Amino acid sequence: MAVTLLDTPYDDLETRSADARAAAQAKALAAVLTEAKRTSFYFSRALADIDLDAVHGPADLTKVPVTRKADMAALVQKNPPFGGLATAVLKPARVFASPGPIYEPEARRDDFWRYARALWATGLRPGDLLHNCFAYHFTPAGAMMEAGALSLGASVFPAGTGQTDQQVEAAAALKPAAYSGTPDFLRTILEKAEAHGADLSSIRMAHVTGGALLPDTRAFYDARGTAVMQSYGTAELGLIAYESPAHDGLIVDEGVIVEIVAPGTGDPVADGEAGEVLVTLLDTAWPLLRYATGDLSSRLPGTSSCGRTGPRIRGWLGRADQSTKVKGLFVHPHQVAELRRRHPEILHARLVIGREAGADTMVLQIETETAEPSFTATVADSVQTVTRLRAKVERVAPGALPHDGKTIVDTRDYRHG
Amino acid sequence: MAVTLLDTPYDDLETRSADARAAAQAKALAAVLTEAKRTSFYFSRALADIDLDAVHGPADLTKVPVTRKADMAALVQKNPPFGGLATAVLKPARVFASPGPIYEPEARRDDFWRYARALWATGLRPGDLLHNCFAYHFTPAGAMMEAGALSLGASVFPAGTGQTDQQVEAAAALKPAAYSGTPDFLRTILEKAEAHGADLSSIRMAHVTGGALLPDTRAFYDARGTAVMQSYGTAELGLIAYESPAHDGLIVDEGVIVEIVAPGTGDPVADGEAGEVLVTLLDTAWPLLRYATGDLSSRLPGTSSCGRTGPRIRGWLGRADQSTKVKGLFVHPHQVAELRRRHPEILHARLVIGREAGADTMVLQIETETAEPSFTATVADSVQTVTRLRAKVERVAPGALPHDGKTIVDTRDYRHG
Repeated sequence: MAVTLLDTPYDDLETRSADARAAAQAKALAAVLTEAKRTSFYFSRALADIDLDAVHGPADLTKVPVTRKADMAALVQKNPPFGGLATAVLKPARVFASPGPIYEPEARRDDFWRYARALWATGLRPGDLLHNCFAYHFTPAGAMMEAGALSLGASVFPAGTGQTDQQVEAAAALKPAAYSGTPDFLRTILEKAEAHGADLSSIRMAHVTGGALLPDTRAFYDARGTAVMQSYGTAELGLIAYESPAHDGLIVDEGVIVEIVAPGTGDPVADGEAGEVLVTLLDTAWPLLRYATGDLSSRLPGTSSCGRTGPRIRGWLGRADQSTKVKGLFVHPHQVAELRRRHPEILHARLVIGREAGADTMVLQIETETAEPSFTATVADSVQTVTRLRAKVERVAPGALPHDGKTIVDTRDYRHG
Repeated sequence: MAVTLLDTPYDDLETRSADARAAAQAKALAAVLTEAKRTSFYFSRALADIDLDAVHGPADLTKVPVTRKADMAALVQKNPPFGGLATAVLKPARVFASPGPIYEPEARRDDFWRYARALWATGLRPGDLLHNCFAYHFTPAGAMMEAGALSLGASVFPAGTGQTDQQVEAAAALKPAAYSGTPDFLRTILEKAEAHGADLSSIRMAHVTGGALLPDTRAFYDARGTAVMQSYGTAELGLIAYESPAHDGLIVDEGVIVEIVAPGTGDPVADGEAGEVLVTLLDTAWPLLRYATGDLSSRLPGTSSCGRTGPRIRGWLGRADQSTKVKGLFVHPHQVAELRRRHPEILHARLVIGREAGADTMVLQIETETAEPSFTATVADSVQTVTRLRAKVERVAPGALPHDGKTIVDTRDYRHG
């Protein structure tokens, strides 16, 4: 049966069956794992004890260790500039610097970051001009959008950030069909244009990321008839997921495998539950395997009503890294996960940090069906072993805790170093 | 006889004979003229009365009308965004905006601006990393360097301008072999690095343009052992001329034809004399024919001691456009040129603007061999006809005026609108 799309697919990868996708990704993953283990300084060590023959495809990824964005600055310090993650295949075209500092390579390849797919879903077509308001200096957002637009045959005005008056002047003369940038900046430009009497009616679509698209801004664009699509991506990974005209969640890019795991772990959460976004980039030059982004999202059931068959996630739901200091010691989500591993009777747990009479307090809320009276005392001992801090342990009914990916909740009204 | 170069040529165009170059450029010029007349809105009019069959090569370019950068803003206003100059062949990749505003296209082609040649002569080689401190937003300087570096197989860090501390941090980690940017900024970065104890010894060459390389800055780089090469280019034209390790003038790029003319005219000056730089870009998509840059330079005799056989010019010698207002009326270099056309007895002329007793004054200094007593009065009448202003005419001995491209010299100690 032919798949009918609301719009036009960028290529036939978007409409393949789940089985065809899994098979193709299994093959790509095998090549990536092999190259990573063979020639990446970092992964040759990380994968030393992993039997690659036992990883038959995306479903076996849990056998592969997690690499954390939170650890990248330290890795880079030890092995500049790429933390030893790149393989011998990498021949960089551009290289970038992000806060950390972390350095990201662009492999010498057309549309390395795969943004053409997201821009196509936004409606960008060959011959269209994209007014690109992402920065080109240091960080790769500007280059990502540009490479995607050029790859699909569109033209690009590298506008960068700021300079609103000049943005209006240039857009009035160049008549771009599309904008890319943060969700708010186009509104700033359009409002300034109206104040100046400049005609920017050529801009009929926008691809936005890097910030929240708030309802009143969405309503402003809707009222103007501007089609606005969002995407989720990072400087190291490029495109992770993108919106289509169905506005029915973010569809995962065909070049990555996304897992949603309990924050601080590599353990998948139940379908639909919020968790940390783990991305495997299917790239032999830059093999980011189970890369923990530190971002929260959740999987959406089924597929998009636009007809694209890929898995979907919700947008960005917050930061997954809830590490914080209590009485001068760090507590981490992976410590909460460790408690659940030690006590399988804990169905779900949440560590609530508070402050009382000038001192930090910790309460571990646990969902459990165990009636055993001594269970909370046993768990409290484990908390002390794992965190070197005391906590009060509170039983709650199964299902009582919100499943929003938050493992540590800090209720103190100030943060202390 | 094989040509021996001080360094290695980028390609064999650089070492071809003058005849081979003229023949190849004649062929390219014919194609450009034909396409321009056929499909460029602007050039189809500008070339309407020109018999293209009579233009047999670079030597016949004087038959083609001059297009002035000074007129571009007005042309752009009438026909945005490119003033009607582009041909039907143009499929833009990126488009840029420069003050004016003028908009410049990049045709969809590898190294459209031809900067690979200049960077190669600087010493950049495949696998080297270029720390590129030109801006990428709005104007094309950043993209020009980047396209050249990527085209020759080097990598690029798009650093942009400013952020000196972060520039030092990134360069220390990325270990670039080369810098590109304005002449002074690398010194700022290196001095900051020294203050921070950061090791930037990886940077062993620099390609600089967009400003004067002053002797003490040159000495700073020399003392450090940094090879510094300059180039001359513009946003519309890309590379015009570049320095080689011989430091023996700027060698004209193989993709353009350069003429040196009396400012405000299309008339070539005598060899070695300063004049306005007129550039013909041999590009069927963006056929800038005899484009008057408004810059002054002069031709150097012979060829570079590095072995490259192309024509050479000195660096930038100032602005050619010396138009100024006298008693509320503009006087232009082309009006001075018109006086020389009317009176062939004038070998050389210079209009000196001054101020005396609260009023503007004009003195036309003329080199002439005519002994005829009434000649100065005749010329004074012509000045009034051509400029609608009175001038005192002063005879000077042939050779007495400096041949520095200055046709109008304003000695008033303030400028008035």
